[in-house]
Amino acid sequence: MWEKPALLIDTEKVQRNIENMLRKAIENRLIFRPHFKTHQSADIGDIFRKKGVAKITVSSVSMAKYFADNGWNDITIAFPVNLREAGEINELAERTRLNVLVDSVYSANKLAQKLENETGFFIEIDNGYHRSGLLHEDIAEIDEMVAIAEQNNPLEFKGFLTHAGNTYAAGSKKEILSIMKSAATQLQALKARYAERFPGIITSYGDTPSCSLADDLSDFDEIRPGNFVYYDVMQLLLGSCTPDDIAVAVACPVVSVYPQREELIIYGGAVHLSKEFVPNDRGAKIYGYVVRLTENRWTEPIPGAYVASLSQEHGIVKMCSEDLLKFKPGDVVGVLPVHSCLTANLLLKNRQLL
Amino acid sequence: MWEKPALLIDTEKVQRNIENMLRKAIENRLIFRPHFKTHQSADIGDIFRKKGVAKITVSSVSMAKYFADNGWNDITIAFPVNLREAGEINELAERTRLNVLVDSVYSANKLAQKLENETGFFIEIDNGYHRSGLLHEDIAEIDEMVAIAEQNNPLEFKGFLTHAGNTYAAGSKKEILSIMKSAATQLQALKARYAERFPGIITSYGDTPSCSLADDLSDFDEIRPGNFVYYDVMQLLLGSCTPDDIAVAVACPVVSVYPQREELIIYGGAVHLSKEFVPNDRGAKIYGYVVRLTENRWTEPIPGAYVASLSQEHGIVKMCSEDLLKFKPGDVVGVLPVHSCLTANLLLKNRQLL
Repeated sequence: MWEKPALLIDTEKVQRNIENMLRKAIENRLIFRPHFKTHQSADIGDIFRKKGVAKITVSSVSMAKYFADNGWNDITIAFPVNLREAGEINELAERTRLNVLVDSVYSANKLAQKLENETGFFIEIDNGYHRSGLLHEDIAEIDEMVAIAEQNNPLEFKGFLTHAGNTYAAGSKKEILSIMKSAATQLQALKARYAERFPGIITSYGDTPSCSLADDLSDFDEIRPGNFVYYDVMQLLLGSCTPDDIAVAVACPVVSVYPQREELIIYGGAVHLSKEFVPNDRGAKIYGYVVRLTENRWTEPIPGAYVASLSQEHGIVKMCSEDLLKFKPGDVVGVLPVHSCLTANLLLKNRQLL
Repeated sequence: MWEKPALLIDTEKVQRNIENMLRKAIENRLIFRPHFKTHQSADIGDIFRKKGVAKITVSSVSMAKYFADNGWNDITIAFPVNLREAGEINELAERTRLNVLVDSVYSANKLAQKLENETGFFIEIDNGYHRSGLLHEDIAEIDEMVAIAEQNNPLEFKGFLTHAGNTYAAGSKKEILSIMKSAATQLQALKARYAERFPGIITSYGDTPSCSLADDLSDFDEIRPGNFVYYDVMQLLLGSCTPDDIAVAVACPVVSVYPQREELIIYGGAVHLSKEFVPNDRGAKIYGYVVRLTENRWTEPIPGAYVASLSQEHGIVKMCSEDLLKFKPGDVVGVLPVHSCLTANLLLKNRQLL
């Protein structure tokens, strides 16, 4: 067992994380459309399904196909529509209720020409994150896009969607809630402007930090958090979760022990964990926290221990001598990933459900 | 074509890069044992084979198996031996000439107990990179490891090996050559110490920056560079290659164009390019240079354009308005990766040989 780096998934924690977020959605009377890009796997999807979840979000057409093949039929692809995949989108729209994201008149027009099957679209709003989306004040362009949906084509206007990725750079819960409030105000105003012409439109909001930290999400109609299913070190540092909520650890064989350097070398590198890092309080990079694996699960993080460097296959773990001397080559440590979405993506073929 | 991010591999450049390094190895009378972790693919391996290469380096047992299955039978796994994979190593040693790396008496002893088939081992020396390996002055431990090879077990002592990963942090060609010289002195002294007892032992040296920049590599018996087959932006900045030597580009569909922000959004994120970055001269992060794709290949990098940010699937490209306005959603740009090994690993299933 654990000959090679493997993603250990604590399904009890997964269930608890899903239940907590689902409860919040129900209490706020929201559509719960969790983002499946974090886990990208049918078995974790099944856990959601057993809790009653039927609508999902993905970040690529390929992922939409994968989940459609696994029985999901109400899918939003929360990524600016890729016109080169119009053919695949059209096929998917034939067998699922599919929504895509559009952020320009150009793409909306092209899509209207290329599609044959009814496809929903959200207009993506950039609430200040400045990745993709129109600004809420880009009314002329939004007007034009909305008008396209009233023409004779298979596009159906579904509402306004934003991903508040700027919460990841926030310094406090207060700041995260303030970003959320601002996004809500923007989306609500837009919805109000078009609600008479399109009575069914909704506002859709994403991001795990907001959805984890806010109790009141009632300003929105739908939430799309994804990372919460696993959480990770980044979310821990943002305050979105406790160490005990982190539902994944990477089992990494120890290959070398250097007591004088207070370092372990593990088989677990950039191709397993990803090069995502968080800075520690002295400006050094942290690529993961370190835990001891127990018979069924893992411990709390070992105080002061962290993955300090990653090559393609090697990881360097910093650890005080006292803890370090408990390890020998051939042992295994667990690493709590900095960004579980990227780690899970790298280890899709080497997972173990606990 | 290019509906999704794909690794374009210019096989003419690959051939030229291989020929240049092979010529250098021949001129210096070295064993050429290129590292296959960069490309991890049988078809690129075949190009090496056609040039007469028969010995290879890999960084994991899994990779060794993959290449053994593709007809390679002289393989060094340049990674501190993972005792949990002793069973697989033993199987591989039955059907190939296999070398592993050992950096402790503990691991050497365990390996001697666990293996049944003849297996070569190098003692890994830490020349100053401080990842794995013993220091050249750790003579007591090295003596003990060497003595294990004289006992009745399947371990055969092959010599001393180092990876000068510290060249990647060097500020100049002079500094890189000085790191190489120091490593050579260390390895030569160790070889001399044991050469009478083990007449066949060699010194083995890695890393693309040294092997690209040095003309005289005759201080070593074997070289193991890997990245040179593709090169990348990191190597370009180190001076190891020219832009024209970079043999891979990632084709990324353009999904949004924001003229006011001077930014394009591409379908091409951390799960395609990896989060490896280099700093630009103003301290911002660069995740790749940007090129135009032509009918058969790609152009030189577009001046001033770069990938400035990566999410899971999105990339943000900075580009001056004049160049930016030539692109529309549905077009494709090429991205020269910062670290081609990690990018190639992520796109193993989506490659196109040109």
